[in-house]
Amino acid sequence: MAKYVIGLDFGTLSARAVLVNVQNGRILADCVFDYPHGVMDRALPDGTPLGINWALQHPQDYLDAVQYLVPAVMEKGGADKTEVIGLGIDFTACTVIPVDENMNPLCFQEKYKKRPHAYVKLWKHHAAQYEADRVNRLAFERKEAFLDRYGGKISSEWLIPKAMQILDEDPEIYESMAALVEAGDWLVYVLTGNIVKSSCMAGYKATWHKKEGYPTKDFLKALDVRLEKLVEEKLPGEVMPAGSKAGEINRCGAALSGLSEGTSVAVSVIDAHAAVLGVGITKPGKLFMIVGTSMCHLLLGEKEKHVPGISGVVEDGIIPGYFGYEAGQACMGDHFAWFAENACPSYIEQEAKADKRKLLAHLDMLASRLKPGESGLLALDWWNGNRSVLVDADLSGMIVGCTLQTKPEEIYRALTEATAFGTRMIVETFINSGVPIEGIVAAGGIAVKSPFVMQVFADVLGMEITVNKTSQIGALGAAMFAAAAAGSKAGGYDLLSDAAERMAGKDTVTYRPNGSYKRVYDSLYEEYRALHDYFGRGQNNVMKKLRSLANEQKGEAF
Amino acid sequence: MAKYVIGLDFGTLSARAVLVNVQNGRILADCVFDYPHGVMDRALPDGTPLGINWALQHPQDYLDAVQYLVPAVMEKGGADKTEVIGLGIDFTACTVIPVDENMNPLCFQEKYKKRPHAYVKLWKHHAAQYEADRVNRLAFERKEAFLDRYGGKISSEWLIPKAMQILDEDPEIYESMAALVEAGDWLVYVLTGNIVKSSCMAGYKATWHKKEGYPTKDFLKALDVRLEKLVEEKLPGEVMPAGSKAGEINRCGAALSGLSEGTSVAVSVIDAHAAVLGVGITKPGKLFMIVGTSMCHLLLGEKEKHVPGISGVVEDGIIPGYFGYEAGQACMGDHFAWFAENACPSYIEQEAKADKRKLLAHLDMLASRLKPGESGLLALDWWNGNRSVLVDADLSGMIVGCTLQTKPEEIYRALTEATAFGTRMIVETFINSGVPIEGIVAAGGIAVKSPFVMQVFADVLGMEITVNKTSQIGALGAAMFAAAAAGSKAGGYDLLSDAAERMAGKDTVTYRPNGSYKRVYDSLYEEYRALHDYFGRGQNNVMKKLRSLANEQKGEAF
Repeated sequence: MAKYVIGLDFGTLSARAVLVNVQNGRILADCVFDYPHGVMDRALPDGTPLGINWALQHPQDYLDAVQYLVPAVMEKGGADKTEVIGLGIDFTACTVIPVDENMNPLCFQEKYKKRPHAYVKLWKHHAAQYEADRVNRLAFERKEAFLDRYGGKISSEWLIPKAMQILDEDPEIYESMAALVEAGDWLVYVLTGNIVKSSCMAGYKATWHKKEGYPTKDFLKALDVRLEKLVEEKLPGEVMPAGSKAGEINRCGAALSGLSEGTSVAVSVIDAHAAVLGVGITKPGKLFMIVGTSMCHLLLGEKEKHVPGISGVVEDGIIPGYFGYEAGQACMGDHFAWFAENACPSYIEQEAKADKRKLLAHLDMLASRLKPGESGLLALDWWNGNRSVLVDADLSGMIVGCTLQTKPEEIYRALTEATAFGTRMIVETFINSGVPIEGIVAAGGIAVKSPFVMQVFADVLGMEITVNKTSQIGALGAAMFAAAAAGSKAGGYDLLSDAAERMAGKDTVTYRPNGSYKRVYDSLYEEYRALHDYFGRGQNNVMKKLRSLANEQKGEAF
Repeated sequence: MAKYVIGLDFGTLSARAVLVNVQNGRILADCVFDYPHGVMDRALPDGTPLGINWALQHPQDYLDAVQYLVPAVMEKGGADKTEVIGLGIDFTACTVIPVDENMNPLCFQEKYKKRPHAYVKLWKHHAAQYEADRVNRLAFERKEAFLDRYGGKISSEWLIPKAMQILDEDPEIYESMAALVEAGDWLVYVLTGNIVKSSCMAGYKATWHKKEGYPTKDFLKALDVRLEKLVEEKLPGEVMPAGSKAGEINRCGAALSGLSEGTSVAVSVIDAHAAVLGVGITKPGKLFMIVGTSMCHLLLGEKEKHVPGISGVVEDGIIPGYFGYEAGQACMGDHFAWFAENACPSYIEQEAKADKRKLLAHLDMLASRLKPGESGLLALDWWNGNRSVLVDADLSGMIVGCTLQTKPEEIYRALTEATAFGTRMIVETFINSGVPIEGIVAAGGIAVKSPFVMQVFADVLGMEITVNKTSQIGALGAAMFAAAAAGSKAGGYDLLSDAAERMAGKDTVTYRPNGSYKRVYDSLYEEYRALHDYFGRGQNNVMKKLRSLANEQKGEAF
């Protein structure tokens, strides 16, 4: 009898499921479920307005996704639940749900329905910068060791700032919540009844360390006396490494998912991190990058090095036994979508229509005809702040070199190049900090859909990039973790490297750098670096001043 | 019998004529003529490609304009040629025509038809920066006195760099040309047979000085031995002040224009400068600004002061007896047109259509709903380089503060504010240099059409702005100069101040600054000034490096 695993991948706008053959990694079926509530960044479902930089989700969407996707993917793939040996979940993070003592989301309660802080704070909720600044200031003053593991700065996207924002702005919700849970861990609980924390999520997003644990009570108390017991009171559950078994489907989980009780469920992992295994990386050397809505860079290392401005280094964070390094860029597909929606003139849209091309594919085509440097434009890719290596959500985008001759496709190319320069900054920072990079593997929507973007990346980085085009690579990785969680006795694997060898995605294409572009891109990169440091490292804080003025002016309008 | 004067106003894309009652300044008729060749910035009529930053015109368009407009405006206004006592011409400058010994444009000759340098170089031809740099370097080294009168730098738009570019790139054309003539002066010749140079054009665009004349032979020789006799060999004719009579319509002029032989023709003036008289300014105190395709700032002063970065100070340059100061911004209407064409998404276009508004009027409406600072954006308005106070055509546009929430109308407002900050920089430079400004009078297409733009200017400058909405104000000014050229004996005026009192445009509207915006705009202006100096004064020459890289990369494609 064939053995299958199911991988569930929860992204920003939708969730996906794959049914995978454990033996050979073949994906027999995949299904997608769009979140009915999508991203709530202006108002709650009842119209209650949200603040600037908010981004919420509705946890009912996640339950609906499980209920729809698991039976659907089994039916589509022709698999019976008795053949499914495990389920793995990957999820965006830090995406956190305040829950009550029964692990039910607070926003399900009638009395909290109008309270924004009762909802899921999505990873890209950027309204906790004030809190992140406080954490960073205090940790810096106290020389807290954890700070160095996160490039010297905690992001406003992470758990502690998000928890603090709840406490600051709606203390009643903070008091009422029995836990603030990563959505991935929450689904594991919903399916198994076990409260287990993913080492991947805890390590990268909640400043947990394998040896040192969470930030000390002393530190948390210094931040706010009410936070002293944050860890023991609001972050229940044991931290377990990716690839281990979190539990088995219980009665409720079976009712929701249609799987058999007793089926293994893996510890959840962050979406991007699941894909590392999906493309088959289980040891140091290759930088993996997910080129999607945003960019995520993941790398394994033998030792714990302090790399300035990375998002984090976590022992067992990706693959047990190695230090997993993460860096990121907060704006990639979002960047292009912004451009297409807000800055692309109608004549380009009409050309695209006439040529029966999608708008972004048409822009790719137009931009690919340009030579590096030809547009005279240079941009800083900070439309959504800067994650690595500056870790500053208050930075903003910039473009220089505009003339009356500047064409839309030139701006589009400059934005693309800017994201590539941002990645080059990250790559050089890793290498200079003693974490070697010998090649690049990419995956994600843009990596697969846009040969233009990937060629620009190869040219700017001066490195070969192998794109793993296997569809649903994150979900495949989650399924591979499930195969390891199930273990060889159940028909899975005991080692992740074995799972990787058999099951990793095999559909790849390689982009090679054009050597003749090296000189131009090297000199553009030098200019990028100068502007990066000028605007990003405090020489001119205009971006922060503009943002604070904007917030002030918008505030007056409320 | 009523007495009339005709003003002809030659702009960038079209020429206009007005028929004006000498007694009361009433405009009885106006007509427009669009240049059939428009601005040639990509190719000659036969397809010969043009270089980067080129902008040419075809002199036949000017002749066709005269032939059409003068009879048309007389007929429309119901005036007989016997009632017309004078004709005045204003023209964009420096817009220069290489001509042969018969004053015929070289491009009319079959053998030069394919030679770009045989055509009219329009004011906004920006391809002589290399030559301007040479002039500036040498003049700086030699401490040439003329440099101080032009804010320390000669613009690439002016006559000497344009002449040098011809010599550098097509010496045969340079040799063949008997003169390089301002188009306004050329039309005066065509109509009267007199070779007369406008003090306004010579002073502002050819570095002529009332007492010191043109740059010395010695200087020109040091620039290039072949330029030693530039003035005597290529710039024939006497320099005469605006408001004086250049001559009378001769037989050829009568045949072309339909006017009577003997009709007075005034010395030509630059288009913007004609409007100073048109709005009635004949003494110091009020800054006049033309808000059109580009911006021009004109101011009269009692004394010759050295104002850094202004375009020029010329004795008798605008109104005889005063020092006329000029400053400018190279991008205004062009800026908005660029935005509308290249960076405004289709949904805004559709909204405008649905509301039956012109696109820019719709953008005005959307942008006017925003508060200062609300967008978080700040731009440098250098899409067409910087004229004042940096005098550097190689600078380029920049925008900072972009986020994924940035909306098109926010960008549009930031561009508008940037042009207003640029004007504030000019106003403060004048005042700090000892040339007082007590109020602002504006005219031009954008000033009349866009209350939004003018309100932003009033708010940013913190000064009242009176917009003179009288249509064809430049042509009216040219007609007023014609009334003075004709003199009182013929039914005109002997003094420009008398002409101004009777004939100046009377249709005005005043914009008052919103005091509550002062603090925000003061702080945005401080940020603007910091970026202005960083990018514009050599701290970071990225704009120049990008432009030179772009030129190099585009060059490879030819």
